[in-house]
Amino acid sequence: MWLQTSCELKFDITFPTPFILMLRARSGAQQWVSREEYRIEPNVPVFEFSDAYGNLCQRLVAPPGPFCIATRTDVKTSDEMDRGFGAPFIEIQNLPDAVLHYLLPSRFCESDRFGDMATEITAGCYLGYDQVAAIEAWVRNNIRYEPATSAVPASAAEINQRGAGVCRDLAHLGIALCRSLSIPARMVVGYLHELYPMDLHAWFEAYVGGRWYTFDPTQPELRGGYVTIGYGRDAADVAIYNQFGPPVIPIVQHVEVQRLARPD
Amino acid sequence: MWLQTSCELKFDITFPTPFILMLRARSGAQQWVSREEYRIEPNVPVFEFSDAYGNLCQRLVAPPGPFCIATRTDVKTSDEMDRGFGAPFIEIQNLPDAVLHYLLPSRFCESDRFGDMATEITAGCYLGYDQVAAIEAWVRNNIRYEPATSAVPASAAEINQRGAGVCRDLAHLGIALCRSLSIPARMVVGYLHELYPMDLHAWFEAYVGGRWYTFDPTQPELRGGYVTIGYGRDAADVAIYNQFGPPVIPIVQHVEVQRLARPD
Amino acid sequence: MWLQTSCELKFDITFPTPFILMLRARSGAQQWVSREEYRIEPNVPVFEFSDAYGNLCQRLVAPPGPFCIATRTDVKTSDEMDRGFGAPFIEIQNLPDAVLHYLLPSRFCESDRFGDMATEITAGCYLGYDQVAAIEAWVRNNIRYEPATSAVPASAAEINQRGAGVCRDLAHLGIALCRSLSIPARMVVGYLHELYPMDLHAWFEAYVGGRWYTFDPTQPELRGGYVTIGYGRDAADVAIYNQFGPPVIPIVQHVEVQRLARPD
Amino acid sequence: MWLQTSCELKFDITFPTPFILMLRARSGAQQWVSREEYRIEPNVPVFEFSDAYGNLCQRLVAPPGPFCIATRTDVKTSDEMDRGFGAPFIEIQNLPDAVLHYLLPSRFCESDRFGDMATEITAGCYLGYDQVAAIEAWVRNNIRYEPATSAVPASAAEINQRGAGVCRDLAHLGIALCRSLSIPARMVVGYLHELYPMDLHAWFEAYVGGRWYTFDPTQPELRGGYVTIGYGRDAADVAIYNQFGPPVIPIVQHVEVQRLARPD
Repeated sequence: MWLQTSCELKFDITFPTPFILMLRARSGAQQWVSREEYRIEPNVPVFEFSDAYGNLCQRLVAPPGPFCIATRTDVKTSDEMDRGFGAPFIEIQNLPDAVLHYLLPSRFCESDRFGDMATEITAGCYLGYDQVAAIEAWVRNNIRYEPATSAVPASAAEINQRGAGVCRDLAHLGIALCRSLSIPARMVVGYLHELYPMDLHAWFEAYVGGRWYTFDPTQPELRGGYVTIGYGRDAADVAIYNQFGPPVIPIVQHVEVQRLARPD
Repeated sequence: MWLQTSCELKFDITFPTPFILMLRARSGAQQWVSREEYRIEPNVPVFEFSDAYGNLCQRLVAPPGPFCIATRTDVKTSDEMDRGFGAPFIEIQNLPDAVLHYLLPSRFCESDRFGDMATEITAGCYLGYDQVAAIEAWVRNNIRYEPATSAVPASAAEINQRGAGVCRDLAHLGIALCRSLSIPARMVVGYLHELYPMDLHAWFEAYVGGRWYTFDPTQPELRGGYVTIGYGRDAADVAIYNQFGPPVIPIVQHVEVQRLARPD
Repeated sequence: MWLQTSCELKFDITFPTPFILMLRARSGAQQWVSREEYRIEPNVPVFEFSDAYGNLCQRLVAPPGPFCIATRTDVKTSDEMDRGFGAPFIEIQNLPDAVLHYLLPSRFCESDRFGDMATEITAGCYLGYDQVAAIEAWVRNNIRYEPATSAVPASAAEINQRGAGVCRDLAHLGIALCRSLSIPARMVVGYLHELYPMDLHAWFEAYVGGRWYTFDPTQPELRGGYVTIGYGRDAADVAIYNQFGPPVIPIVQHVEVQRLARPD
Repeated sequence: MWLQTSCELKFDITFPTPFILMLRARSGAQQWVSREEYRIEPNVPVFEFSDAYGNLCQRLVAPPGPFCIATRTDVKTSDEMDRGFGAPFIEIQNLPDAVLHYLLPSRFCESDRFGDMATEITAGCYLGYDQVAAIEAWVRNNIRYEPATSAVPASAAEINQRGAGVCRDLAHLGIALCRSLSIPARMVVGYLHELYPMDLHAWFEAYVGGRWYTFDPTQPELRGGYVTIGYGRDAADVAIYNQFGPPVIPIVQHVEVQRLARPD
């Protein structure tokens, strides 16, 4: 399907404020960007670079006054995400070098502390995709989706105790559980068609059967319409924006995803 | 200044034909892409990746029949390119690791064969920018710009003998001469505002005084309005498209660059 | 000074066990490896690769039975580490792209939670090196060095509460405090001449004044004799070995650092 | 088999002379370095980095006077190189991104000019490994191995005309022919056990059937005992040393490869 995604952020800046943005969806194996706009007002100099994960990031210094960032993207994405029941666990020695990184614990995914829990959740599963599907189902059924109640970001261990979280929290828990079983897992941020309430979204991917598969514990079942903005080890790597200096709160954060009437 | 660049390529394909395209201008230190379209008809699957130089490339297989690739980009670029007379030669031991690559000879820049000639052209120059400026002037004054007369690509040594060439040929000769003096130099392809006749363009950059500077031996003097699509060691690295299998000739190659009435 | 470092690890393996090792000190800007041995017994196939930080890593599967890894390296390193009092804070917009990564929170360095504490510790400091020196001194004076009492790795926040830790813990706290002030900081593992008790060691580096400087809160004052094995965001990235499957405990871990009588 | 390779280079330096060396064999998928020495006399500062192909390179400035570089390596390598008759041609659209680079023409491999010749040489071959084997046999039988008669490096096209060359020349011709058929091919430099006369050696690899295979047109038949120092597009990328400034000729270049009496 063809989607048009848009994201508008507005700030009221007091001091010159450095930002690193990650708002440019890239074409890749799973999506094709055919049209894109990226407006910054006022129109300050912007420097773009690729981070260690291949995400396109933009650096700028926002001047005092109203500051607006607006992106809009026409992108073709899958009508349905692939499922891979039966796709086998890949033994460590056979994983590609570039994937090993996603086995390590990270800021919000303390995979070093979830071994027993993951083993229990996946007891009896065929090793690989089916384990990840069991983890996804467990998170979906045991961690309540709840709009953010705290400004302090929580880690997988904290979310597990709390029993509730937002999309990034559920993804973190899924990732931590996978890695504790030596299954590479990574965070994805982006858009999802018909997400309710509409906002930026986060989900995760796990590497089984020789490729990455999509999992989303916040949705009742996996469907299509995902648009990726960035990949990373967890939310620390894929913030839509990192802002430095005295904190600045967005006064507007508006996200839209519309289906385009265009043949595939 | 703000420019809108567009490029349209049309082919008549007989057999399924793999292409690797390099037609996506990237935002970077010297330009900002605010809007972009990339249309492919028919709409086959496309896979995008970054090559070894950081260029965004697109892979696809064109099906038999008419095949069209069309890109359009709104981009902010400099009104004037920086000149750097007096910028010093950087000694090899002080060059950044990532730049060393651009000292080596390459397919179309046999820098190993231009040492004496470069020494002669730059005799008496202060080492660094002024040497490159002397090389640029020498190429401008001694190699006649001439529309392509042969389908076989020529190297710097061949162009030097022939005394004439197209923009990529003049750039190759400039690059080969710089490298023979241990000055890193690289090829750039992209667009130039008010190029006549309008087409895709090629020029070069040299690394002196701790940064890359732009040089263009095809133009009477350096002005602004350059839009970069890709960087590489020479034209072999930055083909707008590489096509594999039986050769396919574009039946249309249409390029436009328009100035947008937009404040900077 | 010239040092000979050696590290011997012995395991008693029950099941075929995948390992990823990071035990190959690399020559770099700050050290020169002139001789190196890397013995693995029994002599199974080993595959070497560079990780995302440029560290050389070795992959292998240890077979059941006794398993030994032994490395020995002759390396030239500095007699004294540079200090840089007065070296200025580099504003975010001026940091190299490759350094930005080291501003982010990571598994064991929850820099998102140390802003107030770091501001207090560094109150009145000139921005940059002097802030990091104040952090190093604070950690040295307030966190007791204490041999490991728990198998569970602790994070900077946990160590700060506990008031005691091993070298990696003190480094994590230093890193978290630096990053919370927007100063890039990274973990280093390796050897230190005359460390007591002798073992592998961990310290940190901070990026101020346009380069990386060494800090070590476990030592009463900074001296020379450091040999780097690997760099990373924190201990999760630079484990000397990651082992997968049922846990395997080393039955021997023997480390030596000897000064070689060789002119510099 | 276990080999001990050594290489000694001696220069008589007049002016301070920057060098970039590539003399550190790396452990990798096909060899394991268990012991290594790298001596530089006098003992100037050396900076090591990885180039764009992953080769470890060393930068230094040689001071006036006698200058010596000596490396010695104990390395385990294959007794026999794999052959892969029947391994299929990989279609462009299925090649890994990182391999595409090796399809392009390069300084000494003008693959853009060998299409007809390669088609003729491989007429009737099953597409893939068998084509490369036919190319290897053709070069072996038609280009006479001849010690270097000229200081000026020759390209594949020049060697083909001349009908004679050294090992790097034969490899270049093999590579150019492969690439003209859209088979990725790369240059390898290193050591070969029982090469006669003993020296550094060059051969090539081609990517068919989903992996790299070794080919060596200078040897009557493929055997084991290869030790890789570096990979690149051609000799321009994998010079054992690049020296800058007024040319400096090695007064000694001594290479040895000895079999070690060690069980595999």
